Amino acid sequence: MLFFTQCFGAVLDLIHLRFQHYKAKRVFSAAGQLVCVVNPTHSLKYAPTRCAAAQASAEQGVLPPCHHHEAVHDPQLVPCTCPLFSCPWEGHLEVVVSHLRQTHRINILQGAEIVFLATDMHLPAPTDWIIMHSCLGHQFLLVLRKQEKYEGHPQFFATMMLIGTPTQADNFTYRLELNRNQRRLKWEATPRSILECVDSVISDGDCLVLNTSLAQLFSDNGSLAIGIAITTSKVHNPEAEM
Amino acid sequence: MLFFTQCFGAVLDLIHLRFQHYKAKRVFSAAGQLVCVVNPTHSLKYAPTRCAAAQASAEQGVLPPCHHHEAVHDPQLVPCTCPLFSCPWEGHLEVVVSHLRQTHRINILQGAEIVFLATDMHLPAPTDWIIMHSCLGHQFLLVLRKQEKYEGHPQFFATMMLIGTPTQADNFTYRLELNRNQRRLKWEATPRSILECVDSVISDGDCLVLNTSLAQLFSDNGSLAIGIAITTSKVHNPEAEM
Repeated sequence: MLFFTQCFGAVLDLIHLRFQHYKAKRVFSAAGQLVCVVNPTHSLKYAPTRCAAAQASAEQGVLPPCHHHEAVHDPQLVPCTCPLFSCPWEGHLEVVVSHLRQTHRINILQGAEIVFLATDMHLPAPTDWIIMHSCLGHQFLLVLRKQEKYEGHPQFFATMMLIGTPTQADNFTYRLELNRNQRRLKWEATPRSILECVDSVISDGDCLVLNTSLAQLFSDNGSLAIGIAITTSKVHNPEAEM
Repeated sequence: MLFFTQCFGAVLDLIHLRFQHYKAKRVFSAAGQLVCVVNPTHSLKYAPTRCAAAQASAEQGVLPPCHHHEAVHDPQLVPCTCPLFSCPWEGHLEVVVSHLRQTHRINILQGAEIVFLATDMHLPAPTDWIIMHSCLGHQFLLVLRKQEKYEGHPQFFATMMLIGTPTQADNFTYRLELNRNQRRLKWEATPRSILECVDSVISDGDCLVLNTSLAQLFSDNGSLAIGIAITTSKVHNPEAEM
């Protein structure tokens, strides 16, 4: 009996995911866009591990700028850049992607334009929604974070980081787009390198920032669909001058 | 001697304005765009006049939804909709524009696409930057407001209201665009009617919202250039589905 109940639950979940997928596709109806349902993860990074100072600041809602690469002795090695966990792993930049996939189970998606469908937006801060995006021969890390900069007032921060060097990152432009209820919000910027800390990008506010009220206007049944596109800066810059 | 000093000051001001105009044009370099330098006005609305309750709430940083039109006894008459002053004027919707121009000295600009160059962004909250925009046979009121929703954390809110009825407003889409330092932020929405209160639009957060850090990234020497475009919804909607 328990087996049948669980099966029925799994089928219901599948129908629900399919329905959310359909809804997200309807919002961003361009053909060929891949919709990825991303579930939230409660950040475990600030558990008492190697970075107590960062943790203390984070708990006060003020995330300090942290520069992983400064702490690395072998310049060929970079630490794990997963925003969720304080992970002792170090390795070459080329193997960061496989580490994130295998150890931290972060999904990777292919395609120039994808839709990131973050579920359960109502969950309390701090919460992260994370995927990797493979595009134009590079991999990018998309982070959506719910965080309380001002106590009692959670905000959503979304940014894209290149899994590569800052020089490589300068060659790209990423676009995040929200579109619902006859409102549209677009953020375009050069991605930061994963060697810069995602926490500092978010604490600097140099990303897409949404108040709770705006996030509610753009979300549908607790899910927020973010259209993502990446272009090379050479193609993009003349248009940016418009 | 004083005369010459004043003349010299005036010439310096003119050069400064011309320089700011040139800079804004460079950011939004599409030909034919009109750049309007808009100086800030410290809001006098919450001086102790007819709306003491609204004033008290405003001082606490919580602006209540206010519905001017509910207070009007003659349905043909609307009260003054100037966001800056509590003005006892009432009149027909058709003469609101001339009242705002003549009594409150709010500038009006023509053109489908204009650049709104708000100066002195550093001034303390609450501060408003306001112009009217004449386009597609209608007049719109653009309001940029600096306000502290959370104490000690001023934010910028920008919205566009149609000087007309809500039914008329539904026919349009307005776009606000910031573009600087390889970053671009676009907000598109249906304008609200001036019969709805601008304070409630801002307290609902249903507008372009900028944190101070983001406003600094987009501003140049204390001035923020906002590109404005208005289209009719019929033209716009197929594109919005993209």
